[in-house]
Amino acid sequence: MRVGPIDLGLLREDLLAAIREDVGNGDLTTRATIESGSEARAEFISKQNLIVCGVDVAGEVLRLCDAELAFKSLVSDGDSVATGSVLAEVRGQASSILTAERTTLNYLQRLSGIATVTCEYVARITGTAARLVDTRKTVPGMRQLDKYAVRCGGGLNHRIGLFDGVLLKNNHLAFHASVGDAIEAARRRVSHLVKLEVEVRTMEELREALSTNVDIIMLDNFTPARTREAVQFVAHRIPLESSGGITLDNVREFAEAGVDYISVGALTHSVTAADIHLHVFPE
Amino acid sequence: MRVGPIDLGLLREDLLAAIREDVGNGDLTTRATIESGSEARAEFISKQNLIVCGVDVAGEVLRLCDAELAFKSLVSDGDSVATGSVLAEVRGQASSILTAERTTLNYLQRLSGIATVTCEYVARITGTAARLVDTRKTVPGMRQLDKYAVRCGGGLNHRIGLFDGVLLKNNHLAFHASVGDAIEAARRRVSHLVKLEVEVRTMEELREALSTNVDIIMLDNFTPARTREAVQFVAHRIPLESSGGITLDNVREFAEAGVDYISVGALTHSVTAADIHLHVFPE
Amino acid sequence: MRVGPIDLGLLREDLLAAIREDVGNGDLTTRATIESGSEARAEFISKQNLIVCGVDVAGEVLRLCDAELAFKSLVSDGDSVATGSVLAEVRGQASSILTAERTTLNYLQRLSGIATVTCEYVARITGTAARLVDTRKTVPGMRQLDKYAVRCGGGLNHRIGLFDGVLLKNNHLAFHASVGDAIEAARRRVSHLVKLEVEVRTMEELREALSTNVDIIMLDNFTPARTREAVQFVAHRIPLESSGGITLDNVREFAEAGVDYISVGALTHSVTAADIHLHVFPE
Amino acid sequence: MRVGPIDLGLLREDLLAAIREDVGNGDLTTRATIESGSEARAEFISKQNLIVCGVDVAGEVLRLCDAELAFKSLVSDGDSVATGSVLAEVRGQASSILTAERTTLNYLQRLSGIATVTCEYVARITGTAARLVDTRKTVPGMRQLDKYAVRCGGGLNHRIGLFDGVLLKNNHLAFHASVGDAIEAARRRVSHLVKLEVEVRTMEELREALSTNVDIIMLDNFTPARTREAVQFVAHRIPLESSGGITLDNVREFAEAGVDYISVGALTHSVTAADIHLHVFPE
Amino acid sequence: MRVGPIDLGLLREDLLAAIREDVGNGDLTTRATIESGSEARAEFISKQNLIVCGVDVAGEVLRLCDAELAFKSLVSDGDSVATGSVLAEVRGQASSILTAERTTLNYLQRLSGIATVTCEYVARITGTAARLVDTRKTVPGMRQLDKYAVRCGGGLNHRIGLFDGVLLKNNHLAFHASVGDAIEAARRRVSHLVKLEVEVRTMEELREALSTNVDIIMLDNFTPARTREAVQFVAHRIPLESSGGITLDNVREFAEAGVDYISVGALTHSVTAADIHLHVFPE
Amino acid sequence: MRVGPIDLGLLREDLLAAIREDVGNGDLTTRATIESGSEARAEFISKQNLIVCGVDVAGEVLRLCDAELAFKSLVSDGDSVATGSVLAEVRGQASSILTAERTTLNYLQRLSGIATVTCEYVARITGTAARLVDTRKTVPGMRQLDKYAVRCGGGLNHRIGLFDGVLLKNNHLAFHASVGDAIEAARRRVSHLVKLEVEVRTMEELREALSTNVDIIMLDNFTPARTREAVQFVAHRIPLESSGGITLDNVREFAEAGVDYISVGALTHSVTAADIHLHVFPE
Repeated sequence: MRVGPIDLGLLREDLLAAIREDVGNGDLTTRATIESGSEARAEFISKQNLIVCGVDVAGEVLRLCDAELAFKSLVSDGDSVATGSVLAEVRGQASSILTAERTTLNYLQRLSGIATVTCEYVARITGTAARLVDTRKTVPGMRQLDKYAVRCGGGLNHRIGLFDGVLLKNNHLAFHASVGDAIEAARRRVSHLVKLEVEVRTMEELREALSTNVDIIMLDNFTPARTREAVQFVAHRIPLESSGGITLDNVREFAEAGVDYISVGALTHSVTAADIHLHVFPE
Repeated sequence: MRVGPIDLGLLREDLLAAIREDVGNGDLTTRATIESGSEARAEFISKQNLIVCGVDVAGEVLRLCDAELAFKSLVSDGDSVATGSVLAEVRGQASSILTAERTTLNYLQRLSGIATVTCEYVARITGTAARLVDTRKTVPGMRQLDKYAVRCGGGLNHRIGLFDGVLLKNNHLAFHASVGDAIEAARRRVSHLVKLEVEVRTMEELREALSTNVDIIMLDNFTPARTREAVQFVAHRIPLESSGGITLDNVREFAEAGVDYISVGALTHSVTAADIHLHVFPE
Repeated sequence: MRVGPIDLGLLREDLLAAIREDVGNGDLTTRATIESGSEARAEFISKQNLIVCGVDVAGEVLRLCDAELAFKSLVSDGDSVATGSVLAEVRGQASSILTAERTTLNYLQRLSGIATVTCEYVARITGTAARLVDTRKTVPGMRQLDKYAVRCGGGLNHRIGLFDGVLLKNNHLAFHASVGDAIEAARRRVSHLVKLEVEVRTMEELREALSTNVDIIMLDNFTPARTREAVQFVAHRIPLESSGGITLDNVREFAEAGVDYISVGALTHSVTAADIHLHVFPE
Repeated sequence: MRVGPIDLGLLREDLLAAIREDVGNGDLTTRATIESGSEARAEFISKQNLIVCGVDVAGEVLRLCDAELAFKSLVSDGDSVATGSVLAEVRGQASSILTAERTTLNYLQRLSGIATVTCEYVARITGTAARLVDTRKTVPGMRQLDKYAVRCGGGLNHRIGLFDGVLLKNNHLAFHASVGDAIEAARRRVSHLVKLEVEVRTMEELREALSTNVDIIMLDNFTPARTREAVQFVAHRIPLESSGGITLDNVREFAEAGVDYISVGALTHSVTAADIHLHVFPE
Repeated sequence: MRVGPIDLGLLREDLLAAIREDVGNGDLTTRATIESGSEARAEFISKQNLIVCGVDVAGEVLRLCDAELAFKSLVSDGDSVATGSVLAEVRGQASSILTAERTTLNYLQRLSGIATVTCEYVARITGTAARLVDTRKTVPGMRQLDKYAVRCGGGLNHRIGLFDGVLLKNNHLAFHASVGDAIEAARRRVSHLVKLEVEVRTMEELREALSTNVDIIMLDNFTPARTREAVQFVAHRIPLESSGGITLDNVREFAEAGVDYISVGALTHSVTAADIHLHVFPE
Repeated sequence: MRVGPIDLGLLREDLLAAIREDVGNGDLTTRATIESGSEARAEFISKQNLIVCGVDVAGEVLRLCDAELAFKSLVSDGDSVATGSVLAEVRGQASSILTAERTTLNYLQRLSGIATVTCEYVARITGTAARLVDTRKTVPGMRQLDKYAVRCGGGLNHRIGLFDGVLLKNNHLAFHASVGDAIEAARRRVSHLVKLEVEVRTMEELREALSTNVDIIMLDNFTPARTREAVQFVAHRIPLESSGGITLDNVREFAEAGVDYISVGALTHSVTAADIHLHVFPE
C-alpha cells in the first residue's frame, strides 16, 4: 500500500513546487529569529483518532528541504492510530524543520483526512459484498495522492483519469441514437485491455444497457429501493456500481441492496483535514 | 477582485498541469464515442445558493483545452447566485467540452465552496469591527487560488507564504530567552516594509508582547471570554488577531469581543465543494 | 483518429522542446543568409507511397516557431497517399520555415513510417478476426505520438503505460507460487475498470492460466503451429494475444491460427523513416 | 567517449520524463503482484553481437527510480560484446527493478542499435581516409543521446543542431544570386569560431563553391563515379563530404572515391533496436 | 545570513539551467582534451579585496555537475577578504571542474561584486541612523541571489517583488484624485501584515502624504538639502526613505540629512563583476 | 539582427519566469489602487543617448502579461537614439502595464546598456581590421540575450557556450605534454565543422601553437607592444585574437597592433544599465 521510492521520485517536482509555494524567496520569520547553528527535534502528533496517510510524503518533503534532516516514521501509511500518537520524528537544523512545517502538515492533514473518512465508509459496509471506490473529483494537482489516500483508508480506486477507463455518462450518450450504438462504437476503438462502464438513470436505461456488451453498469442517483430492484433484475449478469447521493448515513443501505461497487465523490472533493501538529523542541 | 489577465497567465502552467493530470494520453471515452465534427453547447449551473469563484479560471481551462471554444461568463467571481443559475456557457467542439468538464468543475466547485463559506463567516460578524482572514493551511498547489477565493467571499488574506510577513509562533519563541529578544532580532533583519506579528497563548505572554515593538499580536486559542479580557487590557494600543478553535457558531463571539482580525484555517483546509454541474447539449 | 486541439495543447511542451533541441541559441545559417523580410512558400512532399501521420503535429510545430505562418494541410492523418503528393503547404517568413524544417520532418518521417508499416501488417491479416496491436517499446518521449501513429495505420493500442492495464509477465510470476495466486492477488488490488492479462510460455501454463479469472492470455513466443493448438484448446473461452517473433512474413500465419490480437514491438522500436521532403520557394 | 556525470545530470529531467511517461500514476502490475519487501537481482543480457551504448544511462534510470538500487555495469559504452553477454546487473527492491525495466531497455536497445550499425559502416570504410558522420535526422528529444551513440560506434558527429555550424543547403541558396554572395554574407555575420559548409548538386556548383572561401563542401546525391571526379577536381584544396543515398552496400565506394567525410541519415532516423533482455531473479 | 539548504534546494533548477546554458550538448574542449580518468585540484582565488558572496552557490553548482566533487569553502558569504585569498577549493574529476568553471565564476563574480559595492555604500554611512536598501532593479532570473548579495554586503532588502509590499509611485497616484484617496483604497484591500509606502516628489506631496495613514514615505529625487528640510518637517512622525540619484559620492549627505533608509538601484542594475579566478592543478 | 518570432518563442519560458519572479502571487499595489476598468497609455523613453536593444523583448513581456495590450515599437533593436526619444508605446489595461513595468525595464535597460557600450568599443576601432567579440562572462540565464545585445551594438559573438567551439586555455594545456599534443587530440575528436582556438601567454607558446594545425590563436594578456610583435611574427598565417585587460581606453592600441579579433569580458560581466523610463498616462 505504501508509496514506494519510484512514486516519491515521480512526485518530487510536485513536492518541490509545494515547498516553493510556501517558502518563495525565503522564510522571513526563521531567517530573522533562528540562529543558523540551532538544532532541534520535532514530533508529528495526532490530535484525533485517525488513519495515517502521508508519512512518507512528509519525510520526503523534509529531505527535499534539507538532505541532512534525520526523519524517522513510527507508523506506516494505512495504520490506525489513537489521539496523542507520535507519527514520526525529525532531527536536524531547527530552521529547516520550521520552514518545512506547514508544507508537511498540509499534506499529512489532507491525506490522513481522506484516509480516515474512507475508512469510516468502509467500516459501514463491512460484511457486505460491496466495495467502496473514489471518483475523479479531486483537487487539481492532488489526483495521485488523493487516490493513494483512498487506498490507505481501505477503498478501491476508480479510474485515475480520462486515459485509463471508459465511462459513458449521459453527456456522451446524448450524442448517440442508443446506448447500444455508443457501446459498440466505443468497443471498436479502444484497447482490448480497457473496460467499458455506462451510467444509467432509469430502469429502462438499465435494461437497454444490459443488452449491450458493456462491462459494468453505474446506477446514477438511484435510491436504495430502486437499487435493490436493479440488483434483482440484473441478477449478477454484470457488476453494478452505485453513484450519487451517497453519505455515511445511507451507504450501508446501498451496500445491502447488493451492488458490487459504491463510489463517493465526497471522499476527495469535500475533505476535512485531520488534526495533526508538529511540536518542535530546541536541542 | 478579479483574477486579471496577468494572474491567469502566471497560472497557465498550473492549469495545464491540472488538465494533463486528468487527460493524460487522451480521453478514451470521448475519443471512442464522439465523432470529431460534433458541436455542442454547455451550461455551468449552480445547484445551490453560492458565492461564485473560478469562472474566469474555468474559461481559461476551456481555452487551454481548445482555443476555438467560445466561453461566456454570465456572472463574475464574487457574485452571489441562487440555485439554478447559469454561471457561464461554452460552445464549440463537443469533444473538447467533454474532456475539459471535470477539470473545470474541480476548480469551480472548490473555489466556490471556499468563497461561499467565507461569505457565511463574514455575514456572521457583520456590524463588528473585526475582519475575517485566512491562513496558510491550503492544499499544496492551490495557495494562490484558495486565497483568491477567500477574497471573493469577502475575507482578507493573511500573509501568502513564509516570504511576505513575519509571524513568530511558539516554535520560534522557544529558541529565544524572551519575546522581546525575539522581536528585536527579527526587527533588525527584515525589510522595513515587513510587519511583525507574534502569537501569545496566555495573558502573561500578551503583556510581554505588548512591551515590544511588534506590529500585531495573535491570541492563540483564547476563549471568547479571555479574548474580551485581552482586548480590554490592550486598549487599542496594537491590533489583535484571534486564531484557533473558531467556527461559524462562535465567530461572532470573538468579533464582539473586540478583536481586529479573526483567522480561520478551515476556510481552506476543510472545504466543502459547491454543487455545480455542467449540462451538455448536442448542437 | 485525429490528434485534436487538446492533445496538441498537451503536447506543446514536447514540441517546443524538440524545436529548442534543434534551434538552441539560434539558427546560424538562416540568420547568416536570409534577409529578415524574405517571404517563402513551401510544400511537404511524399517521396514514396505512405500512410500519412503527423500533419497536424507539423502544423503545430510551424505555428510554435512563428504564429504568423499560414499552414494548410492537404491530407489528413491516416490517409494513404502516393509518391509525389503534396501533404501540406506553408507560407510566411522564409527564415521561420527554414528553421522549423528539420523538426517538422523528424516528426512527419517517423510517424508516417510507423503508420505505413502498421498498415502493411494490417493489410496482411485482412479477412481474419485478428487485430494488430502495439507495445510499450517506443522511443523515450514519443509514447503518445508513436501510439497515435499506430492508430493512424489501422492498429489498435495495447496499454499506454504501466498505469492503465495489468500484464503479468514471467518476471512477475516468478514471485508467486502459481499463476492463480498471482491473478487472485492482483484482482483484489486493482480497480474494477482494469483488465488483467497474463503471459504464458507453454501449453501447461496456458492451461493453468485458463483456470483463473484472468481477462486475456498472451501466448509468448508460440510458433504458429502451437498457436493453433492453443486456440483450439481455449475454444473462445477467453481472448488470446500472440506476441514475440512476429514479422510481416509470418503475421498472417498467426492470424489464421485464430488468435484475437497480435502484438508487434517492431512497429515502434525499429522504425524506418518515411521519405518526405520540404521544398522551399522564395516568393 | 563516456557520458560523464555532468551529461547525466543534464539529462536527468529527460530520463525522469521517460520514466514518468511509462509509469504515470503507478505501475499497476507491480503494485498488484509484488509484495513490498521482495528483493531481486537482475541481469541485462545481449541476445546478439553488438556495440554497447546506454549502460550508464540505464544505471541512471534505475537510480532515479530507486536510489537504493545497486547497479553495476560489466561493460562500457563503446565495447563490442557477443551474444549472451551480461552487460550489467542490478540488485534491490524487486518492484523498483520491474517498474524500471521497460524504460531502461527502451534506451539501451535504441542506443546500442545505433552504435552497432554505426560500427558496421565504420568497418566498411576501414583503411580509407574517410570518416563516417551523422546528421540532425534524430528522433525529437533524443538528439544528444543519438549522437553519443554514433560516437560510441566510432562515428564522428556533424553539427548538433542549427546553432553550432553553418550548412548552406539548396533551400538557403535559392535566396541568393550566387553561392559566392551567400557565403560572403554568412562569413560576415557568424562567429570566427564557426565553419561554413555548402551543399552542391552539380559539378558546376562545385566549381562555383570552390571559388568562395567556404570551409567544407558537401556533395549532395553524387554517385560514386561523380564523387571520384569531384575529388580529383578539388585536389585536396578543401575537405569534401558525401551525403545522400549512402548505404552499407555502397559506403565503401564513396570512401574509396576519396572524400573526407560521409554522412548517413539512416544511422539515427531508421534505427533497428538491438536485442537486449532483462532477466529478473527473486532473491 | 547564509543561503541555507532550503534556499539552495529551491534554487537548484536555476543553477541547473545556468549549467545547461553553458554546457548544452557537451563541453567540446574538455571532451576533446581531458582523459576521463584525470583528477585535479582547483582553487578559487580573489584578485582584489572583496566581500565574498556566492561560495555556497558555487559549491552547489559543482555538486550538481558532479556529485563526486569534494568542495571545501575556506570563507563564508559576507566575509571580507584580501587580494590573493583562497575562497574555496575543489578536488575530483578534472573534466567536471573544467566544465563547471565558467558557471561558478559567473555567479561568484557577480554576487561578490554586488556584496562588495554594497559594503562600500554601507561604510560611507557608518555612524548615521540610515540603513542602505536595494530595489527591484535586478537582472531577470537573479532577484533572489542579487538580494541575498545585498544582505551579505550589509544592506537591507526592500520588498522582493510586487507581491510582498505596497509602494505607490507616481504612476499609481495618477489614477487617484489624491494621495489620501489612494492610500485609503489600498489600506482596505491588503493584508493587515502589509505595509504601505508612498513616493513623493515635492514638499507639498510630502505634506499631503503625511496626513494619510501610510507607513513609510519615499522622497524621490530630493537633493540632500531638500531631504534635510523634509526630515525636519516630518520630525520622526514616520520613517523616510531617500531614492534616486544616490551615488557613493553623495550617499553620506543623504544619510546625514537624517533619513531612515536610502535605496540605491545601481547596487544590482549596474554591477561590476569582482575579480575572482579558478586555478586548476592536475593531480 | 532582430530577435525573430522563433527566438522569442524559445525565450517565452524565460520571460514568463522573469514576470513570475517579480509578480509572484500578485501585484499588491496595483490590485489595491487601480480599478479594474482603468485604461492607460504608456511610453518607453530614453533618458540618454543609446543603442536600443530589447524592444521586441519588452513587447513580448507585455503581451505575455496581457494579450490585449497594444504594443507598438517606434525604433528597432540596433538603432541609435538620442535622449528623450520614445522607443515604444503601449495601450490597454492600466493594471497590466503597471504590473509589467519593472520586468520590461529590467530587460531593456540591461540589453541597451550592453549594446551601447559595445557600440562605443566598436567606434573606437573603426578603420582598423579588428572586430570586437564578446565572451561567456554573462549573467546566468542571460547568455542568449546578452549575446544578442552585443550583436545589436555591432560586436561579433564568440562561441555561445562550451558546446559550439573549442578553446584550449591554460587549464586544459596543463594536462598535456605540449600544445601540439593537445591540439592533435582535440582535432581527432571533434566535428569537422568545429574550429579550434588556443590561448597563449608568451611568445614561446605562440611559436609552439603556430606549428600546430590550430585555427585561431588567442593572445592572453599581451600588452599592445607584445601584441604588435606577435602580429608581425605570425604574419597573417593564422587569425589572432587579443584577450584580457582591454578597456575603452586601450582597445584602439590593440586594434592598431593588427589583431583580427578583440574580446572584452566587461561587455557583459560589468554592465551599466541604460537609463530608460516608462511614463504612464491614464486614459
